[in-house]
Amino acid sequence: MRKPRLMAPGPAPVPEDVMLEMAKPVIHSRDPRTKEGIKKAVQGLQEILKTSNDVAILAATGTGAMEAAALHAVPPGKKALVLNAGWFGLRWAKICQAHGIDFETIDFEWGQPVDPNRVAEALKGRTDIAVVMGTLSETSTGTGHPIEAIGKVVAETDALFAVDGISGVGAMECHVDAWKIDFLCVGSQKALMLPPGLAFVSVSPKAWAVIDSFEPKAFYFGLKAAKKKLADWDTPYTPAHTLIFGLNKSLDMIRAEGIENVWARHKAMSDACQAGVKALGLELFSARPAEGLTAFVVPDGLKDSDIRKKLDERFGITVVGGQDKLKGKIVRIGHMGYNDEVDVVGALAALEMVLAQLGHDFEPGAGVSAAQRALIGQGSPVGAA
Amino acid sequence: MRKPRLMAPGPAPVPEDVMLEMAKPVIHSRDPRTKEGIKKAVQGLQEILKTSNDVAILAATGTGAMEAAALHAVPPGKKALVLNAGWFGLRWAKICQAHGIDFETIDFEWGQPVDPNRVAEALKGRTDIAVVMGTLSETSTGTGHPIEAIGKVVAETDALFAVDGISGVGAMECHVDAWKIDFLCVGSQKALMLPPGLAFVSVSPKAWAVIDSFEPKAFYFGLKAAKKKLADWDTPYTPAHTLIFGLNKSLDMIRAEGIENVWARHKAMSDACQAGVKALGLELFSARPAEGLTAFVVPDGLKDSDIRKKLDERFGITVVGGQDKLKGKIVRIGHMGYNDEVDVVGALAALEMVLAQLGHDFEPGAGVSAAQRALIGQGSPVGAA
Repeated sequence: MRKPRLMAPGPAPVPEDVMLEMAKPVIHSRDPRTKEGIKKAVQGLQEILKTSNDVAILAATGTGAMEAAALHAVPPGKKALVLNAGWFGLRWAKICQAHGIDFETIDFEWGQPVDPNRVAEALKGRTDIAVVMGTLSETSTGTGHPIEAIGKVVAETDALFAVDGISGVGAMECHVDAWKIDFLCVGSQKALMLPPGLAFVSVSPKAWAVIDSFEPKAFYFGLKAAKKKLADWDTPYTPAHTLIFGLNKSLDMIRAEGIENVWARHKAMSDACQAGVKALGLELFSARPAEGLTAFVVPDGLKDSDIRKKLDERFGITVVGGQDKLKGKIVRIGHMGYNDEVDVVGALAALEMVLAQLGHDFEPGAGVSAAQRALIGQGSPVGAA
Repeated sequence: MRKPRLMAPGPAPVPEDVMLEMAKPVIHSRDPRTKEGIKKAVQGLQEILKTSNDVAILAATGTGAMEAAALHAVPPGKKALVLNAGWFGLRWAKICQAHGIDFETIDFEWGQPVDPNRVAEALKGRTDIAVVMGTLSETSTGTGHPIEAIGKVVAETDALFAVDGISGVGAMECHVDAWKIDFLCVGSQKALMLPPGLAFVSVSPKAWAVIDSFEPKAFYFGLKAAKKKLADWDTPYTPAHTLIFGLNKSLDMIRAEGIENVWARHKAMSDACQAGVKALGLELFSARPAEGLTAFVVPDGLKDSDIRKKLDERFGITVVGGQDKLKGKIVRIGHMGYNDEVDVVGALAALEMVLAQLGHDFEPGAGVSAAQRALIGQGSPVGAA
């Protein structure tokens, strides 16, 4: 028997109920039930994103939402300021470059969080920066960036704040309105517990004022058209409505748990995974770990591909390696969405067995028990019981 | 009991086996099985599209594939020539306009096919036209355009030929290579028997030569990146892989039937539906009906909304009305993908009952029997038996 356990930082596992919801007979995309579904999805997203901003639903993956934000955030003659601290921070720059949008970057070491003071310095006296582009959870390094603090800095200027929340939303606290996020970009296949194929972007009134001041070069990702159609709970082009119905099922589950409890569960999983990994003598890669994944440095003498392969072959566990310049250097364990504390403990137990086989030196059981202690000791769902 | 019967020109019904394939546990998007799935999907699409061209798979709906083609087809200083004979022909123009791509249109009356001679005239002596943009099946009017003949005209020039095949592919004969189609844009939710969320675009060597001659302003829909990743059966960004696995299931079904037989089935359904509708004293809207849908003119004294509402409420049948300037003027019956001859006869029977209730004057049974005669009399699968 091979029981699959998807513990990657996205795509993440999808609950059976959500899969079966999407397996129902397809209805028409302009059926009143589709409009009801879009309405429920938008309102559910507003609830968990803590926002009263418009939320556009796109038939795309998260990168499409980032492209939508980029195309609408920079009027002619203005620039974007990209906070580059990893592969996905860099994606903002690549999107700008491809579309001929002028930009500059502030570069941070991969694994380090963005320093809000450097953002403040960079914005000082600048009137040409139309938008600051950041990342809630940098999936490539497993780093959570201080979006609340950066939002405060950006909000004091005329610049907009666009945030890639793709692997962050649902796994990490995020308050769009309170944190002054003008564009929040979200993908379906992470902590929202859906397959890939839907993307969302929330748009603040401050952002709309900019968007309405020029003619953004966008059609498929056109937000003006999306807003117009949203008034009637519709989309400009064919919606990926089976995924939207699945989303409503997963939003029901999130609502039943309570988004604050969902965040607490991810915090508990993150703390437990960090504690477990450290107890095995492994080094965390990130100085400020994100809560949907844990990245550890591959110890000397071991190969990340061996660790991943054995986890997969023997235990059906999918974790991932590093991207770009981190290839071969780190292993990333995802614990987001439809994963719970027992999944994390199980993954650590499997990791211990694999590391023992590969000759890594550590005290057997140390990772598991450190994770358990973390789960019992703190205000996690387990500790609270 | 309400048995749903989706007879719209897309989204079209999805076979149960395809839905259940997509309800399987989600695997990682970079898993070797995902690559296998992408490889199988690309090769299957090449087979049914009759092409050896590259086929990019996008996480988007069909309009995204059109945008991808438009962004790559027109180098700076060149123009697009849009063949505008309906709402979706017009979409090419709107995409160009939104992206600042220079274009002109040749306008045809809605419901009339594009005249290849007018395309030839328009291209005569022109070196500034980089691409001609046409439509295989104009969903808004139910018209099939003579793509083979237009392709012949365009192929004699340096211009590329981009075709929206969204509601046509799978329902109508289409030979990408033989018909000299440089970009064929396809959506998943029509005759390919999938939910919305995947789009495909085939790219010819003639098109690649143009694409490689400039820097297209595209990122999410970037075809150069897609080609690079396709070499390793991968995608530049997260693929909508559950849909790709579903696609492989539907391609298996199409392959088992044989694409030529699939086209013949659609031709038979189209002929039967046309015969049935005419026998009820209704006028066909299109002068050259497409094979995936039949559009008829709403007779004087009746309202399209009454016809649609009664079909839906009493028989669970979803058909659609007209779009834009055809709103209220036509009714469109879809018969594509997972629909067969009995579905068409059933829809006509239901239409008869609804029209009788609404006071339309016709001989009861005339539509059904005309459809049956069409199915028996010609080389359709029924006639052949």
